[in-house]
Amino acid sequence: MSDKVTIYDIAKTLNITAATVSRALNNNPKISEATRLLVLETAAKMNYKQNKLAQSLRSGKSHNVGVIVPRIDSNFFASVIRGIEEELRPVGYHVIITQTNEDEVRQSENITALLNAQVDGILMSISNVSEANDHVINNVVKQNVPLIFFDRKKEMPGVSSVTINDFEAGYLATKNLIEQGCKRIAHLTGDLSLEIFINRKKGYQKALLDNDLVFNEDYVLQTKSSVDAGRQAVQRLLGLNTPPDGIFSSSDFAALGAIQELRERGIKIPKDVCVFGFGNEPFTRFMELSISSVDQSPLEMGRMAAKVFLEQINNTSKVKIEKKVVLNPELQIRKSSTRI
Amino acid sequence: MSDKVTIYDIAKTLNITAATVSRALNNNPKISEATRLLVLETAAKMNYKQNKLAQSLRSGKSHNVGVIVPRIDSNFFASVIRGIEEELRPVGYHVIITQTNEDEVRQSENITALLNAQVDGILMSISNVSEANDHVINNVVKQNVPLIFFDRKKEMPGVSSVTINDFEAGYLATKNLIEQGCKRIAHLTGDLSLEIFINRKKGYQKALLDNDLVFNEDYVLQTKSSVDAGRQAVQRLLGLNTPPDGIFSSSDFAALGAIQELRERGIKIPKDVCVFGFGNEPFTRFMELSISSVDQSPLEMGRMAAKVFLEQINNTSKVKIEKKVVLNPELQIRKSSTRI
Repeated sequence: MSDKVTIYDIAKTLNITAATVSRALNNNPKISEATRLLVLETAAKMNYKQNKLAQSLRSGKSHNVGVIVPRIDSNFFASVIRGIEEELRPVGYHVIITQTNEDEVRQSENITALLNAQVDGILMSISNVSEANDHVINNVVKQNVPLIFFDRKKEMPGVSSVTINDFEAGYLATKNLIEQGCKRIAHLTGDLSLEIFINRKKGYQKALLDNDLVFNEDYVLQTKSSVDAGRQAVQRLLGLNTPPDGIFSSSDFAALGAIQELRERGIKIPKDVCVFGFGNEPFTRFMELSISSVDQSPLEMGRMAAKVFLEQINNTSKVKIEKKVVLNPELQIRKSSTRI
Repeated sequence: MSDKVTIYDIAKTLNITAATVSRALNNNPKISEATRLLVLETAAKMNYKQNKLAQSLRSGKSHNVGVIVPRIDSNFFASVIRGIEEELRPVGYHVIITQTNEDEVRQSENITALLNAQVDGILMSISNVSEANDHVINNVVKQNVPLIFFDRKKEMPGVSSVTINDFEAGYLATKNLIEQGCKRIAHLTGDLSLEIFINRKKGYQKALLDNDLVFNEDYVLQTKSSVDAGRQAVQRLLGLNTPPDGIFSSSDFAALGAIQELRERGIKIPKDVCVFGFGNEPFTRFMELSISSVDQSPLEMGRMAAKVFLEQINNTSKVKIEKKVVLNPELQIRKSSTRI
């Protein structure tokens, strides 16, 4: 790669200041026509490539917006991103995406990479709430770069969020299983440092309580959002003295693994065990034994997050906007939980 | 949002050049200690935030690499991106992703957005080969930003590519259907301006020819990569006087739609019609009636594309590297095409 010619090089050649070169290149009216032409000619001779980003450094706008998600290979996050793009593209913003693979070090690297790419804002679903990343996240807020959490959030001053009512979702899914006759309902939860999983679990517990069912800690398994993890969870549950007759999984992928494992062992779904997933991934409706799931309105979530960003970026007042938008979940009741 | 303090503002305050401010902030040894301290103090007082990107503009390295894909909600592209990340992250590069939704205008916008974000290279799977984008793509090459195509490529001087042997893939999938007794094999193809779809179709035709089967143009339908498009294609095929007894789809999503439509009409798979997909999306193996598909080694493809990028970025010679890597496809033969 050849060395890039900078405005400093042009300035040196012409014995003028870099600021003058910059103004000339940007057609600033303060610069005389003679100087402007001289700078343009010299820049052309030196093979200088004007850098739009350098311009944006001065204007303070790159029109790039960064999105950080735990993973892109989930229909949920892909749909949120589609919602964000649908809202931002018509007003001239481009969306650039990074994924963390649920790794907090990568999350912090991604934030830095996006800030270095001069994004005008960051919309993110956090991978975990360990305090290790707090200073990096705070750094975004301090730099006055609008930051909006979606789905997975953390309580931080100055940060808006768009989430669904996960408590309600957990409550309704569990209630559905109870109505189908399940008495011993297991719950596959996620990383319990994240609010979404805490709230889904609370909803699950409240539904048990409201229906006079006993909460059994053995029935709650922290499970990764993968098919294999769902299989392993079922193996453990079936090893209990009284295995469950219903499973509410906080992940569709784990629900699918659970179903595969149950069926391989000759356990009938929904007759012996009802299963309810979360996320409404497309495969849940593609299966011959379609999987009940919670829809999180990802498109709507993305659009709302984008709207909150636009409000913030266009906010010229000194008053900071901090919004908490909570969307309602919707049950998609399918074969895997329908006995009646 | 408050106006950003720039090095120009600091220079003006101190009545020195912006270049001096920049050198002082970057601890350039040419700057005296007194000046350095003065600049640092003034910068701190003025609440100046040093911009790493501004630094990278000078060093010519942002350590961000841009990836452009038609869509992120496909396991294939998500896996390629994972491969790219696995190779690049250990050597200090961050991957930022954009999607085009198969739209050439967005593709061009994405290239510009990534160049503006100062990426050190672009790895892309093109959305179509219309010439409208040629100047934007050429612009990348001209700016000496390494550009690598993966999966969907276009022949352009100076651009390397990593693809699979799509002809071979089409040939082998069709051959499998013939071996299972199919005599009238339809082909759901994609955008025939793209090499990958041309080559898959050529492989399909060659397999028919080698096995003395007649090529029937009515059996080739240009079909979008979606479940609905697959359903519609089957509706058209079943309207023919002699409907097909085998379908080779260039898309797993279209294959799934085809299967759903066939089954709803009481047509048995694989007995009446065998179906072969392409891409090895996870749902193809999750289904009770698992779907045969072509695996494209996406992780390996991503890793190779990243390696080619690293070779180019680290190439200090004047000789340009132009590599064409072709990976072998692998059939995943499952229930949807297995009669025997």
